[in-house]
Amino acid sequence: MTINTLGPCLLDSPLAPELEHRRHSVHYVHENDRVLFDDTVQMLVDRGANLADLPGFEPAGPRRKIFFEPASTGVGIVTCGGLCPGLNDVVRGLVMELWFHYGVRRIYGFRNGYQGLVGAHTEEAIELKPRSVRGINEDGGTMLGTSRGKQDPSAITDTLQRMNIQILFVVGGDGTLRGASTIAQEIAKRDLKISVVGVPKTIDNDIPFIDQSFGFQTAFSEATVSIRAAHVEAQASPNGIGLVKLMGRHSGFIACYASLAKNDANYVLIPEVPFQLDGPKGFLAVLRKRIESAGHAVIVAAEGAGQDLIQAASQGADKSGNVKLHDIGLFLKEKISQDFAAAGMELNLKYIDPSYIIRSVPANPYDSVYCVRLAHNAVHAAMAGRTEMVVGRWHGRFVHVPIALAVSQRNQVDPDGDLWLSVLEATGQPRCFG
Amino acid sequence: MTINTLGPCLLDSPLAPELEHRRHSVHYVHENDRVLFDDTVQMLVDRGANLADLPGFEPAGPRRKIFFEPASTGVGIVTCGGLCPGLNDVVRGLVMELWFHYGVRRIYGFRNGYQGLVGAHTEEAIELKPRSVRGINEDGGTMLGTSRGKQDPSAITDTLQRMNIQILFVVGGDGTLRGASTIAQEIAKRDLKISVVGVPKTIDNDIPFIDQSFGFQTAFSEATVSIRAAHVEAQASPNGIGLVKLMGRHSGFIACYASLAKNDANYVLIPEVPFQLDGPKGFLAVLRKRIESAGHAVIVAAEGAGQDLIQAASQGADKSGNVKLHDIGLFLKEKISQDFAAAGMELNLKYIDPSYIIRSVPANPYDSVYCVRLAHNAVHAAMAGRTEMVVGRWHGRFVHVPIALAVSQRNQVDPDGDLWLSVLEATGQPRCFG
Amino acid sequence: MTINTLGPCLLDSPLAPELEHRRHSVHYVHENDRVLFDDTVQMLVDRGANLADLPGFEPAGPRRKIFFEPASTGVGIVTCGGLCPGLNDVVRGLVMELWFHYGVRRIYGFRNGYQGLVGAHTEEAIELKPRSVRGINEDGGTMLGTSRGKQDPSAITDTLQRMNIQILFVVGGDGTLRGASTIAQEIAKRDLKISVVGVPKTIDNDIPFIDQSFGFQTAFSEATVSIRAAHVEAQASPNGIGLVKLMGRHSGFIACYASLAKNDANYVLIPEVPFQLDGPKGFLAVLRKRIESAGHAVIVAAEGAGQDLIQAASQGADKSGNVKLHDIGLFLKEKISQDFAAAGMELNLKYIDPSYIIRSVPANPYDSVYCVRLAHNAVHAAMAGRTEMVVGRWHGRFVHVPIALAVSQRNQVDPDGDLWLSVLEATGQPRCFG
Amino acid sequence: MTINTLGPCLLDSPLAPELEHRRHSVHYVHENDRVLFDDTVQMLVDRGANLADLPGFEPAGPRRKIFFEPASTGVGIVTCGGLCPGLNDVVRGLVMELWFHYGVRRIYGFRNGYQGLVGAHTEEAIELKPRSVRGINEDGGTMLGTSRGKQDPSAITDTLQRMNIQILFVVGGDGTLRGASTIAQEIAKRDLKISVVGVPKTIDNDIPFIDQSFGFQTAFSEATVSIRAAHVEAQASPNGIGLVKLMGRHSGFIACYASLAKNDANYVLIPEVPFQLDGPKGFLAVLRKRIESAGHAVIVAAEGAGQDLIQAASQGADKSGNVKLHDIGLFLKEKISQDFAAAGMELNLKYIDPSYIIRSVPANPYDSVYCVRLAHNAVHAAMAGRTEMVVGRWHGRFVHVPIALAVSQRNQVDPDGDLWLSVLEATGQPRCFG
Repeated sequence: MTINTLGPCLLDSPLAPELEHRRHSVHYVHENDRVLFDDTVQMLVDRGANLADLPGFEPAGPRRKIFFEPASTGVGIVTCGGLCPGLNDVVRGLVMELWFHYGVRRIYGFRNGYQGLVGAHTEEAIELKPRSVRGINEDGGTMLGTSRGKQDPSAITDTLQRMNIQILFVVGGDGTLRGASTIAQEIAKRDLKISVVGVPKTIDNDIPFIDQSFGFQTAFSEATVSIRAAHVEAQASPNGIGLVKLMGRHSGFIACYASLAKNDANYVLIPEVPFQLDGPKGFLAVLRKRIESAGHAVIVAAEGAGQDLIQAASQGADKSGNVKLHDIGLFLKEKISQDFAAAGMELNLKYIDPSYIIRSVPANPYDSVYCVRLAHNAVHAAMAGRTEMVVGRWHGRFVHVPIALAVSQRNQVDPDGDLWLSVLEATGQPRCFG
Repeated sequence: MTINTLGPCLLDSPLAPELEHRRHSVHYVHENDRVLFDDTVQMLVDRGANLADLPGFEPAGPRRKIFFEPASTGVGIVTCGGLCPGLNDVVRGLVMELWFHYGVRRIYGFRNGYQGLVGAHTEEAIELKPRSVRGINEDGGTMLGTSRGKQDPSAITDTLQRMNIQILFVVGGDGTLRGASTIAQEIAKRDLKISVVGVPKTIDNDIPFIDQSFGFQTAFSEATVSIRAAHVEAQASPNGIGLVKLMGRHSGFIACYASLAKNDANYVLIPEVPFQLDGPKGFLAVLRKRIESAGHAVIVAAEGAGQDLIQAASQGADKSGNVKLHDIGLFLKEKISQDFAAAGMELNLKYIDPSYIIRSVPANPYDSVYCVRLAHNAVHAAMAGRTEMVVGRWHGRFVHVPIALAVSQRNQVDPDGDLWLSVLEATGQPRCFG
Repeated sequence: MTINTLGPCLLDSPLAPELEHRRHSVHYVHENDRVLFDDTVQMLVDRGANLADLPGFEPAGPRRKIFFEPASTGVGIVTCGGLCPGLNDVVRGLVMELWFHYGVRRIYGFRNGYQGLVGAHTEEAIELKPRSVRGINEDGGTMLGTSRGKQDPSAITDTLQRMNIQILFVVGGDGTLRGASTIAQEIAKRDLKISVVGVPKTIDNDIPFIDQSFGFQTAFSEATVSIRAAHVEAQASPNGIGLVKLMGRHSGFIACYASLAKNDANYVLIPEVPFQLDGPKGFLAVLRKRIESAGHAVIVAAEGAGQDLIQAASQGADKSGNVKLHDIGLFLKEKISQDFAAAGMELNLKYIDPSYIIRSVPANPYDSVYCVRLAHNAVHAAMAGRTEMVVGRWHGRFVHVPIALAVSQRNQVDPDGDLWLSVLEATGQPRCFG
Repeated sequence: MTINTLGPCLLDSPLAPELEHRRHSVHYVHENDRVLFDDTVQMLVDRGANLADLPGFEPAGPRRKIFFEPASTGVGIVTCGGLCPGLNDVVRGLVMELWFHYGVRRIYGFRNGYQGLVGAHTEEAIELKPRSVRGINEDGGTMLGTSRGKQDPSAITDTLQRMNIQILFVVGGDGTLRGASTIAQEIAKRDLKISVVGVPKTIDNDIPFIDQSFGFQTAFSEATVSIRAAHVEAQASPNGIGLVKLMGRHSGFIACYASLAKNDANYVLIPEVPFQLDGPKGFLAVLRKRIESAGHAVIVAAEGAGQDLIQAASQGADKSGNVKLHDIGLFLKEKISQDFAAAGMELNLKYIDPSYIIRSVPANPYDSVYCVRLAHNAVHAAMAGRTEMVVGRWHGRFVHVPIALAVSQRNQVDPDGDLWLSVLEATGQPRCFG
């Protein structure tokens, strides 16, 4: 799978005239450099493959020859989906690199996700200059606004043409990137020279071929605040239980890392590891026994954990006319309450759902640096004419990843890997419930 | 209203022999010193009162003559009610002062509030030494645990007698202090020499005759985190509303201070200022208009705000069989959602309820110092034989306040005072809704 | 001592026409309201004084009648002296209140202290609007810049006249306020109607008749970070000593509060309490003994502590040609090193001087609220025609304090008061060294 | 270069009997798994190498067969060199894993670095249990103490023999690890079965074959606080310069990352990039020009920057009898002051040296997780009989690195790499001075 490039390189001098003096600060990447996927190396060699044929990513970085003439290039930026720490750092990094390194002067920020690229909303687009992005990295959220949902790729391409935009940067997750692919395909169909480059965003850290997604470290660090609170509350009352729901619809990375960092959690529930509530070795019985002996417990549940249980319960509930529960936190709260009531045990359960507080904080210094470097590399890729790709870091190096690969699967916590092993050891929880 | 003292002073030398060398570090307070209630001065003078008769508090501090012989004194400590930043600082301050300043060596920490003082729970009491309280001020919560609810004062007094306890320190709110009074009265009835001294706790800052309650500054500082999150979320979506519920059942101090500190709130709703939802100048209409013009809004609601509206709504709801809402946050969320739906307007409302996260943090440096000084003064008061009183700070000086006075009313935000005026100016909200 | 007022009130309606609808949110203060200095009450009454004659401050707050017509009023703001957390909050509070509450539209920020009010520097003055002060409270420092030093009051008055300025807000310390007085006197001499109102700034909390100066809480909270670091370093090495120099030229409030909050300090040295280095009970001997028994020690020294020792040492040094030491931190570091070397003891001393890090942080939420309320009251005072005064909070109420009173003396830690007693108890240090 | 192993595996069951039920939570690593050094792959393939022969690290993790019988194993832990965030997390992780995963019950913490392993100091060794390490991760520093300097490997080996210790964990930097090698060699000479396993510590992030050293992220995050302070101070005064000295004797990673995270620095000086002070394009001239145009500047200098300049200057100084300057911060302060004085320009330079404050903070959540996982893997390696090696993370996987390799060179910032490029772009500083 290779990276699409719009055409042969056009220009030998990427820099605006006034920036030519900074030319010597640029370090070019050889076009035939590769970063191996080293996980697969052994497998392929075992099958007799020649190393020179091994799959690898194109390394990111500035190219000696660029595709777009900076002076005449128009750029659009859009942020989509849920909030994630670092969005503003990415926007700022894009604008600063375009402006100061390449000398691009026409940069538009579209408002509120893809909807800002269609219809009357395009009039809300704002011109972005270094001054407009000054200090935005100190704020959480995204200065451009965001929204969920798709828009017609044809209408979006119309907008890009009408506004004479050559590069569209899309910052978003899974669905957003699929959307970016359809736009790139519409562009190709029309045979336009417009590059679509993504910066993958997932607070859950579940994008494949990316060592760690931006904002993830900030998010799990913030999540430790709630785990600590849950621990304090649990210890302060007789039969105290602190229950924290964390982000992670399909993967439990935030729950695992936050629990390891704080070591206050006794039970970590993640989507990758199913569990049973009932039965003598089920979660409820194990929890009750711990409360009897230790007097308190802290539970951390990723939002995607136990969805099978919720579904089963709600099917039953449907028949009896009760309210359906879609939320693992509220579901566990109810189940635990019922269980303790049935056992005649006192219960002081405190439920904490910190999602909005976590995802809206500014990026921490690590993520801030990471976002700036992602943004710089996204600009280099786009200026060199790459399209339908995202930038990422793989095994410590910044690389170009085709969108099709980035959305091909999800990173998940390996129930047999060392991260989950560390969680099991840190919590002391059994390998399975039920 | 005067402070009860158990009897004439017994001892001229308060200090354990090994501490005698520190004698010179003690600064005694004259017994006839007074801190005036200066709010009432004018009123009384207007009525022709002589200043010498004016009401005032007994200043706190160490006394030259103390009532209890440290070497033979047993002390109990109990923390009651909801968590509040600083509880551990108070416990630590009490233990350190008793141990090092007076040389008291028998100190018991009763577990989980008043229930730890009765029945089998008394066996869970732990001996407290400087080592047991080391570093606890770095943790939130209370190392003793806490619980709500009353216990029989007679049974508690039995425990105090059985364990040969001469001083009981009670850290808790309104109800807890009323309970402390009944214990003191039972003690008096039995003619025992046992002192009951309170350290008033209210995260809501609503105890009268106390400049500011411990933990309040920490709490409203933490609350600003959620207001900021609400602001970020509101700005990030089309028609975004961030709604934060903060503590404050009877008073809106936390909501007011947190809103002033961050200046991100557009509407602050507190128990002291009733409001209407409906009608052309009602809250919902005003909110809708703001969203139409500004695109986003942040609402901060103290938990006790709009209780009349909830009651009215739930009476209606009862008849129709719907679920009652007791929570102003969820209530507003529902009402706003219905209102926007009726108006055919998009709505992105994010509801944040950070109470457990706020109340479980460790005290900030200011509250930490304040708690230590309150604790020191509580020890001085008890050792001097004072009883049925709490320590507080009034107009910058530490004083003794009779429990009856401390529970006689509640501090509230004055809707005509300068704090609320500052809030109105900072938010720009109308003086009344409806 | 009374507050100067420029003349009789001119206007019954303080508000710009478009703000008239907010009229009802204003709560007026009666002109004959007083806040008593309650410390002196007893003394005066003992001498037979009538309460009605007792000294008191004029309460701050909006007046029904104001002196300046908002539409035609020009305002200048200047910040002077060293940085202090909250300066930007004050500037922002002044601008917002002038603009939104009164409708003043001509507001100038002079650059870099008084020097911005004279000569060519006046051209650097910037127009201040709500937009210019947006978010500045999130930054430390002062958006106006600052400098030390006096300027000719006559030249400054010339500038005020030339720029048609009716109100000058001066934010600064002792020297700055004396400067403000000379300006006010020059104005009076010329019989101009220009009000000069100060907001007193002292990170050291040493301004009299002010409960607590803005930025003080933020500063001592930040200082605890360095004390903790010193403690960690001291504990981590054999014979480890952590030495922290904190702000406080004339008063040790920051050193005392920071030490009480963290409880990691073993010795607190402040200007108010002289000490001896040498001799069997001198500081060096006591320190050596502690290291021998406990293995580590933490010393917190206010920058004004031990100046007599430094002076004595440097007089000796002068003769021998050695370098003079003006800095108590470096001085102690050298003395301790010499002393341990002479005793043949290993020493691992880590010296920390965090002043710039502390004073440049943004105000914490408490100080942020406090600054806003001070600023609001400063605006009310100036608009009502008060001059040559500062706003402050005294016994929990905002008041007007004549500049002459505010600079008449310094607040200091009372070596016989309960704050110092608490420090002695928390550190366990002897009452005196030597 | 391969990992030394003490001998053939002894045991098929690594776990203490009471831990057998957790057996199923262990995920074993195949002995012939390899993580490639992928940087060198291309080079080797170019030379015709077979991939199967390519150099690689042994992956870390639990082994099916272990070398030491947990019940009879004695373990020593020692921390050496300067403080670094995360030391306590490592100690805690080692103890918890030994105790709960393997059932080891004899664990000694030696005090104050290698000196605690010789002579009378061995008596200060403390027994470590889960309770002794509870909560230490919340503190900075190291609970074991530390010191610099070597000790006789023979004497240390005597101690290990005398105390019947089979595993020694050494946490420290370059010099410490060389020391560990000499101990392992002494052990080999005596033909003892004692494993020496290191956890490499370097706050500067300069250990080769380690993606990122523990504590580095925490350190550069903390460093941003001082850069922010320098920026605030610089902006607040006419001709303001904020100068921050950061850690980094041989490598400028902290300076680079901290500057990128905050974007407030205008000049970053690191050991890897020499610079000239004088001349028309020298640092001093460039700085002066910036002050003339922009009015302020922020300089971040790694402690190892410009050592050639200091040496040259101090040689001159030696002859003239002046004080030598070894500190780049003080050196630059003096040079800048002289330069501005010579140019007759006002200067407000604030110098900040935050090293002790930075290195003594607790690990942030990321480093905390990283330390726990390093510690777990160090325990697995040692229990499997590996020796004279360290654990590290290389390209995202935990690996075993022979000590000889870990101390063979230093990681440095590549002056031609993308990190330094990003710094040049973020600061706008010229590629070279002079």
